[in-house]
Amino acid sequence: MPTPIAALDTPAALIDIPRMQHNIQRMQQRMNTLGVRLRPHIKTSKCLPVIQAQLAAGASGVTVSTLKEAQHCFSQGILDVFYAVAVAPGKLPQALALRRQGCNLSLLTDSVAGAQALVAFAQQHDERLDVWIEIDCDGHRSGLAAEDEALLDVARILSDGGMHLRGVMTHAGSSYELDTPEALQVLAEQERALCVRAAQRIRATGLACPDVSIGSTPTALSALNLDGVTEVRAGVYVFFDLVMHNIGVCQPDELALSVLTSVIGHQPEKGWVITDAGWMAMSRDRGTQRQRQDFGYGQVCSEAGVWLEGARVTGANQEHGIITLHTVDGDDITERFPIGSRLRILPNHACATGAQFPDYHALDADGGVHTWSRLHGW
Amino acid sequence: MPTPIAALDTPAALIDIPRMQHNIQRMQQRMNTLGVRLRPHIKTSKCLPVIQAQLAAGASGVTVSTLKEAQHCFSQGILDVFYAVAVAPGKLPQALALRRQGCNLSLLTDSVAGAQALVAFAQQHDERLDVWIEIDCDGHRSGLAAEDEALLDVARILSDGGMHLRGVMTHAGSSYELDTPEALQVLAEQERALCVRAAQRIRATGLACPDVSIGSTPTALSALNLDGVTEVRAGVYVFFDLVMHNIGVCQPDELALSVLTSVIGHQPEKGWVITDAGWMAMSRDRGTQRQRQDFGYGQVCSEAGVWLEGARVTGANQEHGIITLHTVDGDDITERFPIGSRLRILPNHACATGAQFPDYHALDADGGVHTWSRLHGW
Repeated sequence: MPTPIAALDTPAALIDIPRMQHNIQRMQQRMNTLGVRLRPHIKTSKCLPVIQAQLAAGASGVTVSTLKEAQHCFSQGILDVFYAVAVAPGKLPQALALRRQGCNLSLLTDSVAGAQALVAFAQQHDERLDVWIEIDCDGHRSGLAAEDEALLDVARILSDGGMHLRGVMTHAGSSYELDTPEALQVLAEQERALCVRAAQRIRATGLACPDVSIGSTPTALSALNLDGVTEVRAGVYVFFDLVMHNIGVCQPDELALSVLTSVIGHQPEKGWVITDAGWMAMSRDRGTQRQRQDFGYGQVCSEAGVWLEGARVTGANQEHGIITLHTVDGDDITERFPIGSRLRILPNHACATGAQFPDYHALDADGGVHTWSRLHGW
Repeated sequence: MPTPIAALDTPAALIDIPRMQHNIQRMQQRMNTLGVRLRPHIKTSKCLPVIQAQLAAGASGVTVSTLKEAQHCFSQGILDVFYAVAVAPGKLPQALALRRQGCNLSLLTDSVAGAQALVAFAQQHDERLDVWIEIDCDGHRSGLAAEDEALLDVARILSDGGMHLRGVMTHAGSSYELDTPEALQVLAEQERALCVRAAQRIRATGLACPDVSIGSTPTALSALNLDGVTEVRAGVYVFFDLVMHNIGVCQPDELALSVLTSVIGHQPEKGWVITDAGWMAMSRDRGTQRQRQDFGYGQVCSEAGVWLEGARVTGANQEHGIITLHTVDGDDITERFPIGSRLRILPNHACATGAQFPDYHALDADGGVHTWSRLHGW
């Protein structure tokens, strides 16, 4: 039985279900048009009803960032799971257990030593693991360069060791530093071309490399063509956030996650409204700090979700948020935002803000609120 | 039955129990010497065995940042609980329920409107609430100035409304911006003097104002005298962290919280070691960013806890940490920190890093590991 929003305690993480469904459709239709599968990264939501909505719209399997997410998805009947972080050898027993229960779990490596550890473990347990190789397309984190000689060594080690080399994958994480369509198109093409090139180099040695998986929300929404790519992984598009808004890949009315908060005080001479959504609720993510617009710890909206221009969370302690307002003479913020009144805050980074909450409260089109639980920890 | 550290999955939040006990003794003895009660702020640990160790050492009651913490403490037999955030009117029914179950819960307000809401609610429910008034001693957040006329209005509203005015409290949060003993002593004296002054102003009207509560870890460890103060609230001292180290109130061997992580890859030409402790494990807190030493997302130590000079987590994605090392010719980081090896990361901010984990793993002096659960959410 849905409860009304007025019955919620604060702070609360709200999902606007119609916006979320719109975002899911937008990305899925784009991937359908580009002729690739979509394997959403569920690290953003870590929430089953959200994942089920993505699968219902046409997603092919899921991407996860932890084995706990993999376990949870599998326990809910989702079999095709890609653990897209180079696996630590100490986690292989847990991965093996999942596979032996029937989960079609794919693993990732980006080094000779990592591949050797995978092969040694798999051979010891008479197992043929599904393995992808990570490609570095923009220098921002992990992966092997497409032209790196070690790429072919890793492919050979996996193949000779009896593993199932599923393909190559990359993530253009540096897309978060861009904010023009032109720059995003260039990076999207670089991500595509380098990952396809890595697959071609492996195939040229006679090895099979069926899949080419790329993805980040900004590049997925900017690519002009995805020739040679078989699947896209993207995550944050399901909720979007202020970082994505600054990058230019979503509109304000596509932001589906917000934090409901109560006003608990004021410092009128400073133009401050104090709320109960501090950094424990918003997270410490300051992802917009070096972007086009710095939103502090978040953009303030009315309880109904209307963007209040110029009102931002400029400071945060653990359970105190400080909203700074542009006030004009005669504007009494204690009257405009009285103690006990409620606001919604749009977060910088949906993945980080969501992680602060054990549950989401999901608002349907009729104003009903559904409680959706969320994974926490590893 | 304690398990060895080698059996832990990563990332894991480790508490060094001997260090924690040392920190608890250090603060308690200091407060005993200064002749005040210590009411530790449990928002740092949110963990019962930690709180119990603080109480066993002599703490008088607890300070909490959420009613969930209050509920948890009360359910474990801790009766004297101060909810030290100005209470949102919407939370009063939950507070009342706790009091009616037998919890000696104190509430906080810093405004006429807040006091009126408290009185109206209490009178409606025939209840005499324990209420403190928040004083602003350094302009960093909430509270009334000691000389504010509204201070006496609030005291009168509470008293006339039948509430039990417990006292005044303040928190010198701006101590986090200082890093010399002299500056900290000055702020500690300002915190003491302004809070005592507020109490004196209330008493001069004929009202009782028995308690004067101050506190932040840096000022508590810097105050030369606490004349007129009856209790100190401090939290992060129980674990300390890199922010406190930069402020100058703890030594490296007093940092009791760290994150155990596994090496999952390298970018040798960049001097990068990639781990499985990204921002989901460390939090997004960059509290050392504008301090004396910027530790990135954390200081790297060996698995045994030995500080590795010059090794810091300079980048973090959700489940990837990037450690940057100063390397010299011939130093092969793939050999020095092989895939699967483990490290410990000291966090910027213990309150924020702890919050990322459902459990702590607490190491006793014999190397045994105990699993201690932690509160999450509101």
